[in-house]
Amino acid sequence: MRLAHIHHVELLSPVAEQSERFFVDVLGMEVEAREDQSVFLRGWGEYQPYSVKLTEAPTSGLAHMAFRTTSAQALNDLASELEGEWIDGDHGHGPAYRFTDPDGHVMEILWESDRYVPPEHLRPSWRNQPQRYVGRGAAIKRLDHVNLLANDVTAAREFAVGTLGYRHYEGIRLDNGIEAGAWLSLTIAAHELIYVRDARQAGGRLHHLAFWVDTREECLRAADIFVDAGVPVEAAPSKHGVAQGFFLYGFEPGGNRIEVTTGGFFVYDPEHEPVIWTEAERARGQYWGVKTVESFHYYGTPPTEDDREYAKAAGVAY
Amino acid sequence: MRLAHIHHVELLSPVAEQSERFFVDVLGMEVEAREDQSVFLRGWGEYQPYSVKLTEAPTSGLAHMAFRTTSAQALNDLASELEGEWIDGDHGHGPAYRFTDPDGHVMEILWESDRYVPPEHLRPSWRNQPQRYVGRGAAIKRLDHVNLLANDVTAAREFAVGTLGYRHYEGIRLDNGIEAGAWLSLTIAAHELIYVRDARQAGGRLHHLAFWVDTREECLRAADIFVDAGVPVEAAPSKHGVAQGFFLYGFEPGGNRIEVTTGGFFVYDPEHEPVIWTEAERARGQYWGVKTVESFHYYGTPPTEDDREYAKAAGVAY
Amino acid sequence: MRLAHIHHVELLSPVAEQSERFFVDVLGMEVEAREDQSVFLRGWGEYQPYSVKLTEAPTSGLAHMAFRTTSAQALNDLASELEGEWIDGDHGHGPAYRFTDPDGHVMEILWESDRYVPPEHLRPSWRNQPQRYVGRGAAIKRLDHVNLLANDVTAAREFAVGTLGYRHYEGIRLDNGIEAGAWLSLTIAAHELIYVRDARQAGGRLHHLAFWVDTREECLRAADIFVDAGVPVEAAPSKHGVAQGFFLYGFEPGGNRIEVTTGGFFVYDPEHEPVIWTEAERARGQYWGVKTVESFHYYGTPPTEDDREYAKAAGVAY
Amino acid sequence: MRLAHIHHVELLSPVAEQSERFFVDVLGMEVEAREDQSVFLRGWGEYQPYSVKLTEAPTSGLAHMAFRTTSAQALNDLASELEGEWIDGDHGHGPAYRFTDPDGHVMEILWESDRYVPPEHLRPSWRNQPQRYVGRGAAIKRLDHVNLLANDVTAAREFAVGTLGYRHYEGIRLDNGIEAGAWLSLTIAAHELIYVRDARQAGGRLHHLAFWVDTREECLRAADIFVDAGVPVEAAPSKHGVAQGFFLYGFEPGGNRIEVTTGGFFVYDPEHEPVIWTEAERARGQYWGVKTVESFHYYGTPPTEDDREYAKAAGVAY
Repeated sequence: MRLAHIHHVELLSPVAEQSERFFVDVLGMEVEAREDQSVFLRGWGEYQPYSVKLTEAPTSGLAHMAFRTTSAQALNDLASELEGEWIDGDHGHGPAYRFTDPDGHVMEILWESDRYVPPEHLRPSWRNQPQRYVGRGAAIKRLDHVNLLANDVTAAREFAVGTLGYRHYEGIRLDNGIEAGAWLSLTIAAHELIYVRDARQAGGRLHHLAFWVDTREECLRAADIFVDAGVPVEAAPSKHGVAQGFFLYGFEPGGNRIEVTTGGFFVYDPEHEPVIWTEAERARGQYWGVKTVESFHYYGTPPTEDDREYAKAAGVAY
Repeated sequence: MRLAHIHHVELLSPVAEQSERFFVDVLGMEVEAREDQSVFLRGWGEYQPYSVKLTEAPTSGLAHMAFRTTSAQALNDLASELEGEWIDGDHGHGPAYRFTDPDGHVMEILWESDRYVPPEHLRPSWRNQPQRYVGRGAAIKRLDHVNLLANDVTAAREFAVGTLGYRHYEGIRLDNGIEAGAWLSLTIAAHELIYVRDARQAGGRLHHLAFWVDTREECLRAADIFVDAGVPVEAAPSKHGVAQGFFLYGFEPGGNRIEVTTGGFFVYDPEHEPVIWTEAERARGQYWGVKTVESFHYYGTPPTEDDREYAKAAGVAY
Repeated sequence: MRLAHIHHVELLSPVAEQSERFFVDVLGMEVEAREDQSVFLRGWGEYQPYSVKLTEAPTSGLAHMAFRTTSAQALNDLASELEGEWIDGDHGHGPAYRFTDPDGHVMEILWESDRYVPPEHLRPSWRNQPQRYVGRGAAIKRLDHVNLLANDVTAAREFAVGTLGYRHYEGIRLDNGIEAGAWLSLTIAAHELIYVRDARQAGGRLHHLAFWVDTREECLRAADIFVDAGVPVEAAPSKHGVAQGFFLYGFEPGGNRIEVTTGGFFVYDPEHEPVIWTEAERARGQYWGVKTVESFHYYGTPPTEDDREYAKAAGVAY
Repeated sequence: MRLAHIHHVELLSPVAEQSERFFVDVLGMEVEAREDQSVFLRGWGEYQPYSVKLTEAPTSGLAHMAFRTTSAQALNDLASELEGEWIDGDHGHGPAYRFTDPDGHVMEILWESDRYVPPEHLRPSWRNQPQRYVGRGAAIKRLDHVNLLANDVTAAREFAVGTLGYRHYEGIRLDNGIEAGAWLSLTIAAHELIYVRDARQAGGRLHHLAFWVDTREECLRAADIFVDAGVPVEAAPSKHGVAQGFFLYGFEPGGNRIEVTTGGFFVYDPEHEPVIWTEAERARGQYWGVKTVESFHYYGTPPTEDDREYAKAAGVAY
């Protein structure tokens, strides 16, 4: 166990100002800091200063994702096994080691992290809560998991398990033998990092970022907020078959897919064998039978040429 | 205001024993009485002895539905305006006047109704609750609304409004001018009786019975229970656009469509103008964009010859 | 049935600006208009322009409450039976007839009411909803009920039932024969107007205003918001024994008691006999056994001299 | 990390048959097996065969609690550091090493555990779920945490952290310097094992067992079920200040305190410093201000002579 959790992601948007409005007004995050072309955003339940660094860029997608290690020693040990380079810290955290996963996603590991100190107007009533609960918009609590597209899910999953130390809880294997998805976790949570097959074989793309709320009711509320705020809903609230998380999917104005999630289960069995789903089983759709929306199988950010029409139809930038 | 509410329905099933198991184990209703080929079933929140009389029959569908009037006088007044006949009471209620709506659905109006007296093991803790809350299965509270198919929705709606005294809150009008649906209520509840167009033009058919739970969480729970009990889910939990009710649709073993519902809103405006939806608006699907399931537009009970394949696929009797 | 529903209330606050911040930021209401010393506030689910007229005044309490009738005829009929006077309309409604109930509460009845037309930024996505759902703070949907203190509950209740046409659903009678509370409704909702005994015998006082949210989860959320916003919580979320509504009680900065409520049940029985609770039964506390908070039995607005200490301790103006 | 999780507890009851009815009908657990004076009970979400072994005995309390290690090696390593003895396995698990904590609670550690294989009528629809969800009663998902009374919380906490490998997330320290409570976890969950001070200084006693449900709504439902089933409710549903879990407390017929719980937060910070609450802070009560019920501070099982009156008043055996 050398990694503790996903510390933050850097998300790109060609319409960063509109994206910021989405994260603040619709998801209910707070702007913790601004720097150059970036704004640092946080959920009310996060101990670290921010979980999303939103950066203006020509296209959408994930600039990098960063993991916090369990100790300074773990950082050095893991860095010594990875091919990459040390970089200076960024706002809110110390030195990091930067590398790429087999699919080309830029990743960083770091140990030193600031702890969030709320300004007066966001000071909570109880000390075991990092920030006041304001209840604006969907009022997401924290970044929950990251779902990455990968040309070769098997290679990506083996790297995550073998090198990064993730546990493999669930997966999908197609009839032709290809591994189409892998649900991975560092903890008892049913998933914290997911790789799913990139139908476009584009490399280094993002499927979605998922933000946690504590109850299914808050997912349903979030859907009402999305609809009335004009946020394109890709998949209305329902319960996943794989990992049984409750979901709502939509697109932020920059075109990145965003999930509001809760639920699922804990994996307490130290001998847990991955549950690998077949094509036939996946054909049942989600837990209650809802068919998986088509775009879910190909659209990622940055979008490919082939995805442009879809993005345009969904009313999002690309 | 001569009608108070829907007092009960008589539902037919070709596999009544299996249907009874569904109503008791899955929906969580109680058997209040048995008589001949019928079993009388109730939700825990109903003041009257029962809301569903389940009767074994060669096919599925609605044998009759009964309304309770607001007074003895109202019963006599309304009966004098209807073409029908007086019949003796049934278990739990007094004399009723039987008639048919323009589509041929058999209806009854009655005034005298027993009030439920729970047996010892179902006596509630608080006197303002008719029955103990046991929490078995979906634990539905009461029959909420009835949705009837009609060959001519306009005629049926005009009868319900003009003669029975229903208020017309929402509706659907197709581009060709045909009225495809009418949401009607005797109270501030957004719907208590619904007519939707019968695509088969069969006459006298039932679209679905809807049972109330107090929370959306209970609808989601009910979906879990349906899935694990092998109940065919026709439409997973989501929020309707029309009337904004939260729904779950499935089929009981006899083939009748059953909804578990909650939510919606109250209509307090005494000048409320019906909200009439266009085809274009309905094309948006449900509130969060979920497309209405195809079978919803034609399947009713008893099923027509054309519906047989569908019923068979859904694993229900017909 | 000459009255349809409570159209609006006029609430007084000695710190109107702070009170406005509470209604807007904490309860999530919208400012619909301003006029002189008043601000007009609305919940997102209300068809009428506003339900609360908040007016700056030397003390707290209820300036008046207004009912909408079921028709113009009903307004005239009822006015002819009441001792009072016609007054010009106010913002959003036409002529009203003003009178007092036996306890001295100022009441108005009116027929002509504007229908809310949302500005562009509050236009909803679905036409059967009066306003966009923004989800700010507790995001209350509408004013639900008004609870008035009365020196003589019996007199007040007889007036409400005999003259105004309310139905009497539940009540409390003390061992000494005194009627201590009456739960009244114009509809199937379990209560819309409540009278409870004023322990101070002050006359014309307000116990609380209750605002509706659709789910118990939203009540729990509202409690989190209250705590972090520094709103004094008088009674944490729980379920009432009487009428079984789910509640959260707190004080707005002006000292008026505010409830966030949901749940309860519908009364469909046209012969419903009032459920009258004894002292012994009320000693059980609320539905799950929570003891009723002491201040609930005496504090009202405007507060009496005896209430000042309490108000000060609760940190609210008086 | 040598311990993975609490595998099961053995609970004693002087009225085992009534206790079994509580666990099956009210909590909704399944009887997995019977053996001699014991019945083995499970929640629907548990991978292991059972989490509660209920054993008839002259008094109530905890006979032992068992932890599963993360590997066979971890079992041997930890056993070598503990003073105790190897015992044969029990139904559902292999050899265990038995020892006591500083307060005298009997504990076991084990590695080999059966995985639950459901009978046909409890086979789930989805393979990533160990058992069908039936929805009976409170339908608890799994044993969540164990709260033990300890004469010396500091000694117990130091043993749990120093030897067993628990992390210390929150605690209470009285003004006189005495440690009154310690919230401990093996994972990101906010608590899995709790020690609170035994006001009776009796030694080896149980404060409560907590069972998990996924939503706050299910806690509220459970309270309705408790009330109507005549289960004594010690503390109605509310939100804890410490660890922020949502709770409902009641007594099973044998007198053991049972919690139905959900909510809380995850501790992702690898440098998390324990949040230690002062007496002044605890005086605020629970999260929304509800005062902690008096009996919570002294009653445990087996009850002392001093607790007998209380137990009798609560209507439970002792």
